[in-house]
Amino acid sequence: MPDTVAVIGAAGYGGAVAASILSRHPSLELVAVTARSDAGRRHDELYPRYRVPLILEQFEADDIAERATCAVVAYPHGAAAPAVKALRECGLKVVDLSADFRLERDRYERWYQAHAAPELLGDAVYGLTEAHRDEIREAELVAAPGCYPTAALLALWPLRAHLSDVVVDAKSGVSGAGRDATPATHFVSVTENVQAYKVDGHRHAAELEQELNGATFTFVPHLVPVEQGLLATCYVTTELAEADVTDLYREAYEDEPFIDLVDEPPGTDDVRETNRCRIHVQTVGERVIALAAIDNLWKGAAGQAVQDLNLMLGLPETEGLA
Amino acid sequence: MPDTVAVIGAAGYGGAVAASILSRHPSLELVAVTARSDAGRRHDELYPRYRVPLILEQFEADDIAERATCAVVAYPHGAAAPAVKALRECGLKVVDLSADFRLERDRYERWYQAHAAPELLGDAVYGLTEAHRDEIREAELVAAPGCYPTAALLALWPLRAHLSDVVVDAKSGVSGAGRDATPATHFVSVTENVQAYKVDGHRHAAELEQELNGATFTFVPHLVPVEQGLLATCYVTTELAEADVTDLYREAYEDEPFIDLVDEPPGTDDVRETNRCRIHVQTVGERVIALAAIDNLWKGAAGQAVQDLNLMLGLPETEGLA
Amino acid sequence: MPDTVAVIGAAGYGGAVAASILSRHPSLELVAVTARSDAGRRHDELYPRYRVPLILEQFEADDIAERATCAVVAYPHGAAAPAVKALRECGLKVVDLSADFRLERDRYERWYQAHAAPELLGDAVYGLTEAHRDEIREAELVAAPGCYPTAALLALWPLRAHLSDVVVDAKSGVSGAGRDATPATHFVSVTENVQAYKVDGHRHAAELEQELNGATFTFVPHLVPVEQGLLATCYVTTELAEADVTDLYREAYEDEPFIDLVDEPPGTDDVRETNRCRIHVQTVGERVIALAAIDNLWKGAAGQAVQDLNLMLGLPETEGLA
Amino acid sequence: MPDTVAVIGAAGYGGAVAASILSRHPSLELVAVTARSDAGRRHDELYPRYRVPLILEQFEADDIAERATCAVVAYPHGAAAPAVKALRECGLKVVDLSADFRLERDRYERWYQAHAAPELLGDAVYGLTEAHRDEIREAELVAAPGCYPTAALLALWPLRAHLSDVVVDAKSGVSGAGRDATPATHFVSVTENVQAYKVDGHRHAAELEQELNGATFTFVPHLVPVEQGLLATCYVTTELAEADVTDLYREAYEDEPFIDLVDEPPGTDDVRETNRCRIHVQTVGERVIALAAIDNLWKGAAGQAVQDLNLMLGLPETEGLA
Repeated sequence: MPDTVAVIGAAGYGGAVAASILSRHPSLELVAVTARSDAGRRHDELYPRYRVPLILEQFEADDIAERATCAVVAYPHGAAAPAVKALRECGLKVVDLSADFRLERDRYERWYQAHAAPELLGDAVYGLTEAHRDEIREAELVAAPGCYPTAALLALWPLRAHLSDVVVDAKSGVSGAGRDATPATHFVSVTENVQAYKVDGHRHAAELEQELNGATFTFVPHLVPVEQGLLATCYVTTELAEADVTDLYREAYEDEPFIDLVDEPPGTDDVRETNRCRIHVQTVGERVIALAAIDNLWKGAAGQAVQDLNLMLGLPETEGLA
Repeated sequence: MPDTVAVIGAAGYGGAVAASILSRHPSLELVAVTARSDAGRRHDELYPRYRVPLILEQFEADDIAERATCAVVAYPHGAAAPAVKALRECGLKVVDLSADFRLERDRYERWYQAHAAPELLGDAVYGLTEAHRDEIREAELVAAPGCYPTAALLALWPLRAHLSDVVVDAKSGVSGAGRDATPATHFVSVTENVQAYKVDGHRHAAELEQELNGATFTFVPHLVPVEQGLLATCYVTTELAEADVTDLYREAYEDEPFIDLVDEPPGTDDVRETNRCRIHVQTVGERVIALAAIDNLWKGAAGQAVQDLNLMLGLPETEGLA
Repeated sequence: MPDTVAVIGAAGYGGAVAASILSRHPSLELVAVTARSDAGRRHDELYPRYRVPLILEQFEADDIAERATCAVVAYPHGAAAPAVKALRECGLKVVDLSADFRLERDRYERWYQAHAAPELLGDAVYGLTEAHRDEIREAELVAAPGCYPTAALLALWPLRAHLSDVVVDAKSGVSGAGRDATPATHFVSVTENVQAYKVDGHRHAAELEQELNGATFTFVPHLVPVEQGLLATCYVTTELAEADVTDLYREAYEDEPFIDLVDEPPGTDDVRETNRCRIHVQTVGERVIALAAIDNLWKGAAGQAVQDLNLMLGLPETEGLA
Repeated sequence: MPDTVAVIGAAGYGGAVAASILSRHPSLELVAVTARSDAGRRHDELYPRYRVPLILEQFEADDIAERATCAVVAYPHGAAAPAVKALRECGLKVVDLSADFRLERDRYERWYQAHAAPELLGDAVYGLTEAHRDEIREAELVAAPGCYPTAALLALWPLRAHLSDVVVDAKSGVSGAGRDATPATHFVSVTENVQAYKVDGHRHAAELEQELNGATFTFVPHLVPVEQGLLATCYVTTELAEADVTDLYREAYEDEPFIDLVDEPPGTDDVRETNRCRIHVQTVGERVIALAAIDNLWKGAAGQAVQDLNLMLGLPETEGLA
C-alpha cells in the first residue's frame, strides 16, 4: 500500500508543480490538494497541463491527517509555520517549501518576522539533499531551501572549505515571484526588461551564511523575462589551483543523480521542468566562476521537496523525478 | 548647410539604428547608407519602423567622400579597419563602432587579430563621451566603446581612483549578438533561457583595464531573452564610506545629459530606445554594488556614436538624441 | 503661442503614450497629466523612457481648464463620459479614447452600460481619421476608435461598398488589456500562450457594423505574448476581381500619410511605436484577405488621438507623429 | 521483448521530441537516433533536457534494420521519401512526419515537388488517429499530418458532413519553422512580432480538402513569439442549431483519450508538452467558431506519431504519452 500525500497550498506555482509530480509518483498516492482562495475549483482547471484531477480543498489538518501520511506545504513565509505545526501534531511527515524552518530563529526573525512555531526548529532539517542526505532520511520535518540558495549552494558546495568572500549574481524567472498579479509580474513590466531587486539580498545570503559557515556573501537577485529557470553565477576568490577545483567538483558530484557537471556554461532551458542542476566551473585569473542552472519550481522547490520526501519515506531518491 | 553623413554597414542592427537616428538629426543630413550582402535593397524594407528612405549601396570610399563629410562605420571587428582607413584618407571624420580602434595594438592583437591599420591607432580617441569629452571634440577618429564596456565603465567611472578588484556580471539582449542567423540567435534557443558565454570575458575586460588602469576585472557576459537592453551589475570591494560613494557619483554625473542616478535598481526597459544610462549605486557590507542599464544599440553603440559625432562637429552634444 | 493640452488618465498605457507624444509635440504644450490612484507621483518615475517631467495630478476639470485648451481623455469605459462632459462644459476640445462616445446610444447601452452623458453623443465624431477627416476638423469632441476596430476598419475601408459577410481574426499585444495586474496579464499566463477571448467579439463588431453599415461581422480577438502590436486578419467574401481590389486600395490610401500598402504580410514589429498602419491585401480563390498591422497604443489609441487633435486644432495632421 | 524503434532525423525539433518520448516509452526500446549534419554528437548534448543518452548516427537503412523493427522518420519534405522507402524495403513499420505520404500524388506534386516514391502512396495511411484509427492499426506506413492540419482537422472533424466554406486562421510557435537558423527565426525578428506568411496557405488547405472532401478552405498561417504551441481558429458557416453542434462534438470526442472539449477558449499553454488537443466550440450568429489548441511538436508531430505507432504495434494507444 503506497504512502499517501497531500499538497497544502497547491494553487501556487510551487505547490502546483508538487501536485503534478506527486500525482504521477509510482510509490505515492496524492490524496488531497488544498488552496486558500481557490478552494472548490478543480486543480486541472487552474493548471490544465499538469492534469491533476482533484478538487482544491480548504485546509483542515485533522481532515488531511485522516487520508495522508505525509505532506508538502507550499504556503507563503509566515503562513506555513502554523500549517506545518498542525500537520506535525497529527503525526504527518512534512516537507515545507517556505523559509519558516530553514533558518535558526535569530536569523529568521531578523530577515522575516516573529516565528510562529519556534519549538519545531530543532527538529527541522535543511533540505538541500546533496548536502544533508543522511539527516533528511531520519527527519520528520524538512525545510526545502529557497530556489536562489539551492542554485548558489550547489554551485559552491564543493568549495565549502575554501570560501571566504563570495559574490552571487542570480537571475530568476518570473514564476519565482509567485502567482500574485502585481505590477512587477505584469507581462508589460517583465518583457524586454532585466532588473535587479532587493539588492541587499539578505534573505538569500542568510541561508548561504548558515550553510557555508564562515564565508561572507554578496547576493544580488535579478528578474529576467523567463517563466521558469534560475541561473546563479558565483564569483569566488581562492588560491586553489584549477586542477584542484576540478577535482573537488568531480568528487563531490560524480555520483549525484541530479547534478550534471558540464563543459560549457549551462542554460536554464537545459534543465527546464527537470529536477536537475547543471554546473560549470571555470578558473579565470584569481577567481573561480561557478555557474549553476536549475528550474526554480523543480530543483528550486517542488522537485527537491519530492527528492527529500523520497528519502524521508525510504524510497529511491529519484523516484517520480526522472 | 548641414554636415553630411554616411553610415557604412547600415544593414546590421547597430548601423541601422545609427541610420535611423541620423535620418532625423536636425543638423545632419544622412546622404548614404551602405551594406555588403543587402546592397540594392531599400533600408526601410529591411527596417520598416526606422523609416530611412534610402537604398543600401555597396561601399566605395571615394564615392561616399563626394557626398559625405563624416561617417559612422558599423562593420564587424576586422572588417572595419580598412573601411575606416579609406574614409580617413578621403578626409572624413569617422566614428567606428567596432573594436578595431578601441585598444592599444598589443591588447587588440592579443584578443582579436592582427591589426589592419595600426598607423591610425595613435589618432583614435576612445569614445566614451562622459570620460573623454574634450579629446572627442578634437578628434577626427573616434572608436565607440563596446556595449558591455560602456555600461560597466559608466557604472564604475566615479570610483576610478578607488578600484582594485572588480566583478562585472553583465546581461545583454540578443541584438548585441548581431543580425547573423545562428543557432545561438534562433528564437527557440533564446526564449526561456539565460546563459553565460565566453566566461573569461577577455575582450570586454581589456577595454575596462585600459580605461581603468590598475584595477583587475572579472567579466562574465550573459545572454537574456530580450531584444535590446544591457544591464551591468558591478561588484566593487572598497573601503569608501557610503556617503563618499554617493558624493563621487553625484559629482561625476550631476551635469551629464544622458546619465540618470536613480534610487532604485534600473531596468533595461527604462532606457529602451534612448541614449540614456540609468545608474544605481548601493553599499552592502564591504561592497559597492553599481548597476548600469543601457540600450545596447543606443548608448551602447549608435546613440553614443551620434553623441560623439555631435562633439566632433561642434554641435550640441544631445542633438538628435532627445 | 501654442495650444495647451492635458492628458486625463496618463498613468494608463494609452494615456502615458499620449503624454509622451504630446510632450514632444512642436505646436502643443503639455501642461497637465492626471491620474487616479497614482496622483502625486512623477510621470517619468512610472514611465522612465517616456521622459515626461510632470507630476500626475488629481483630475479637476476647472483646474485643468485654467491651463489647457484641449484634452485627451484616457479613462476606462464608463469613467470617461463624466470627465469628458466636465471638460466640454469648460469649453475644452476633447479627444476621448474610451468607447463612451463611439457608438450610438442603443448600441453602447447594449454592449456596455447606461450612458452617463447621452446629450453629448450628437456632437461626437468617430475619430478614424482616414474615414472622417473633414468632420474631425470641425469637431469639438472626437471619440477615438478602439484599437481592434481601427485595424479592422482600415483593412476593410476601401471595400466598404462591397462587403457582406466578413470574418475578422485579430491578435493583440498585452498592453491592450491595460495596466491592471490581473491573472490574465501575469507574465506566466501570457508567455508561451496564444488564446482567444470573448469569442463573440460584440463590442468590436458593434463599431464595425456602425461604420460599415449593412455588412455582418464575426470578430474574434486573441491575446498574444507581445507588448505592443495588433494584427487584424480580415476575410472578405466578394466577387471583385483582384485588379479591382488593388485599385480600390490604391485609390483609398495612396495619399494617406500614415498608411502603407505593402507587398508582403505586415508584421506588428514593422509599426511598433509608430502611428502607421501597414496593409497587405491578397485575393485567394473567392476571398480577399486583408491584413492590417498597427501599434495598439499608437494608431490604435494615443497616436490616432493626436492625429485627430491636430486636425481639430488646424495643425498639420502628421505633426508630432513622424 | 519490446519492439525496437529508431528515430531518423532526431536532431530536428520534431525528431528530438520523438526520441525523447520513445526513450521513456514503457513498451518500446529506442535503439538508434540519426542525424545528417549533427551525426557523431550526443543527442543529450544537443537537447540536454530531453535526456536521450544516444549518439546521433548517419542514416543507413540496412544498419538500422538490424536493430529496429519500426521507425519514426523526421526528415524534411522531399528528403523523407527515399529514407522511408529504404526502411520499408527492409521491412520496418514507419511513421513519417513529412508531407511526402500525406497527399494523393497530384496534390503533392502540385504544392510540393515530384514524388520520389509514388509506389508507396497506395499503402500510406493518413495518421490523424481520431479520424483513421482502424486503418492505422493495419498500416505499415503512416503519414502523420502536419501540425496545422492536425489542429484544424480536429477542430472541424465533427462538422465534416456540414462544411461548405471554411476560414482557418492559425497561429503557430516558432519551433514549427524548424531548427534552421534563418532571418525569420532570429529572436530579434520573432519577439514583439505577429505576422502572417504564405497567405495562400495551399499546402495546409490541401490536407484539409483531401480529408474534408467537398468543402473549400481559406487557410492563413501566422507566426507568433511562442516556442511550442499552435492555435487554429476555424470559422464555419452553417445552419446547424447550437445544440446540434454541441451534440456532434460530444459524440465525436467524448471517448477520445487525447481530446478535451472545454467551456472556455483554450490557450496553447494549456497543452504545452502534452499530446492533447483542447477544443472549444461556440456559435455566434450564423457562424460556428471552433478553436483547437495543440503543441505543434507533440500532437502536431512527434506525439501523434507515437500515438499512431502504438496502434500499428498493437499497443495501448496512450502508452508513453500520459
